[in-house]
Amino acid sequence: MCSHEPGSGHVKGRVVALSGGVGGAKLVDGLARVLPPDALTVIINTGDDFRHLGLWISPDIDSVVYALAGLSDPVKGWGRRDETWNFMEAIRGLGGADWFLLGDADLAMHVERTHQLSEGLSLTQVTARIACALGIRAQLLPMSDDPVATQLDTDEGWLDFQDYFVRRRCMPAIRDIRFAGAATAMAGPAVLEALADPELELVVICPSNPFLSVEPILSIPAIRTGLMRCAAPVVAVTPIIGGLAIKGPTAKLMRELGLEISAAAVARRYAGLIDAFIFDQSDAVPAPLEGVRFVAAQTLMRETPEREALARAVLAVAAQGLPLQRRTL
Amino acid sequence: MCSHEPGSGHVKGRVVALSGGVGGAKLVDGLARVLPPDALTVIINTGDDFRHLGLWISPDIDSVVYALAGLSDPVKGWGRRDETWNFMEAIRGLGGADWFLLGDADLAMHVERTHQLSEGLSLTQVTARIACALGIRAQLLPMSDDPVATQLDTDEGWLDFQDYFVRRRCMPAIRDIRFAGAATAMAGPAVLEALADPELELVVICPSNPFLSVEPILSIPAIRTGLMRCAAPVVAVTPIIGGLAIKGPTAKLMRELGLEISAAAVARRYAGLIDAFIFDQSDAVPAPLEGVRFVAAQTLMRETPEREALARAVLAVAAQGLPLQRRTL
Repeated sequence: MCSHEPGSGHVKGRVVALSGGVGGAKLVDGLARVLPPDALTVIINTGDDFRHLGLWISPDIDSVVYALAGLSDPVKGWGRRDETWNFMEAIRGLGGADWFLLGDADLAMHVERTHQLSEGLSLTQVTARIACALGIRAQLLPMSDDPVATQLDTDEGWLDFQDYFVRRRCMPAIRDIRFAGAATAMAGPAVLEALADPELELVVICPSNPFLSVEPILSIPAIRTGLMRCAAPVVAVTPIIGGLAIKGPTAKLMRELGLEISAAAVARRYAGLIDAFIFDQSDAVPAPLEGVRFVAAQTLMRETPEREALARAVLAVAAQGLPLQRRTL
Repeated sequence: MCSHEPGSGHVKGRVVALSGGVGGAKLVDGLARVLPPDALTVIINTGDDFRHLGLWISPDIDSVVYALAGLSDPVKGWGRRDETWNFMEAIRGLGGADWFLLGDADLAMHVERTHQLSEGLSLTQVTARIACALGIRAQLLPMSDDPVATQLDTDEGWLDFQDYFVRRRCMPAIRDIRFAGAATAMAGPAVLEALADPELELVVICPSNPFLSVEPILSIPAIRTGLMRCAAPVVAVTPIIGGLAIKGPTAKLMRELGLEISAAAVARRYAGLIDAFIFDQSDAVPAPLEGVRFVAAQTLMRETPEREALARAVLAVAAQGLPLQRRTL
């Protein structure tokens, strides 16, 4: 399904992308389409993972897998295309929990993952097997095989991520965020190797929610250290355009945390880690930030060509050669 | 969905039915329709239960539940009506095991059961909850909460039941049958109470496979003892009509075990336990068997009225008053 035209990017070596769910997955798909086969490694947030009806659900891994396999639902923005909902109707009939929507085909992912995990495989191994079965050439790495749980301190108290995100539909106001388990979590087995790879030419922070999708990845000490030591430039892409988040609660959350809702504020959040920041061409150039080059691009990705164009823009920034800053993350 | 017309049977007290899957479930449905509400207890074979894709599957419980809830597929003869198969297609796409067909709506049963079991509920409790959610008034009792596994010695060696029944489509010739775990399995918590209930007026052995559906139940020592001490008459219904099994491998299995394929041979298999045996009216009257009254009836149940008619015929046999034999099971 992916074109994998060799040499169509400006980068010869390897690229690592840090990604959450939908927005990040779109850029990951664009990168996979313009990079040579096998050049892309994706480190994926697992802070949203949870157990539901006994099934292990990894929403961000699934979003990336579905995007790369061409299976994403283009209308809903999550889950699989051409989905049916007979399981949900039946589970309601049995009095089971129905607040988290599980499509009939999507269920296969959760059942198969849970089954393989129960047989002793790691989340990294399970993800690799599923990606392989679906013909995905990019290396997909959960940030960790250890449990890390994003939790939110809200005006209703501490909530688990999916309680906040799905059950409460992001309604509670957020006061604080924590990543339970992150301090002692190991990086996924190939994550540090990917960041230390001498052929690594670029690290991309995808346009995912900085607080709920990217920072859980950065909260794992070994990954943070790996990024600090990384010899390749780090380029982030804004998830905010014109003061709005493309999708999800990023803008609402920034407001509740007392932050300006802007690409510039996201760039400041990443200051010390990134060498370049891509903001949307419809926005004003952010105020200068030490060690960060700002680059304008079309960042809204409605269709596949826009994913590929943004991927090329990201690769072009790296190919221009950036003065690498001493990271202070 | 069930009519539960009080008093439409000839029995005033309680009735216990021993049942396997599809054939048994049809008579169970008939009994539930003609008996007063709450008069029926069903002891269900769990020897076919197995774990598949990490899910706990109880095929005979599901068949009884679907029959009583009006959800059975009338064409396939197993599973749910109006079923869809998108999960199966997706699991194939992931390289998962696809030899056992799981419908999208049927999956809800297995996911919910597995989830509740993992939370510490017993199979008896889970079954009661599911039956309640679906508005089923009959008391559904798994024969045991302990694992009992029907296994078959075949010309391909020992096979687990579903390996033989589904994966190998009953092709291997059977030499022997065992019920692993039965000797030490406890009867389900309410099973012995049901058999010892002073208001019990009848025990029905449903037209299920004697070897693979009824004998696993009888193989649990406490249930066998409970039946031997039971004060109510025991009436069995033939699963064989005109030398053929209505469904499933009963006839093939009888041939391989060197038995005559007839209602009479099934009656002899139950000799010492039953007081009456209902054979199909299209068959000849079996040769006399000590302590067993033979009664002819229309035993093929294509539609609901035939289920109800056969249920009434079974109740009528008991209502006539049988000379109870001393059980020698």
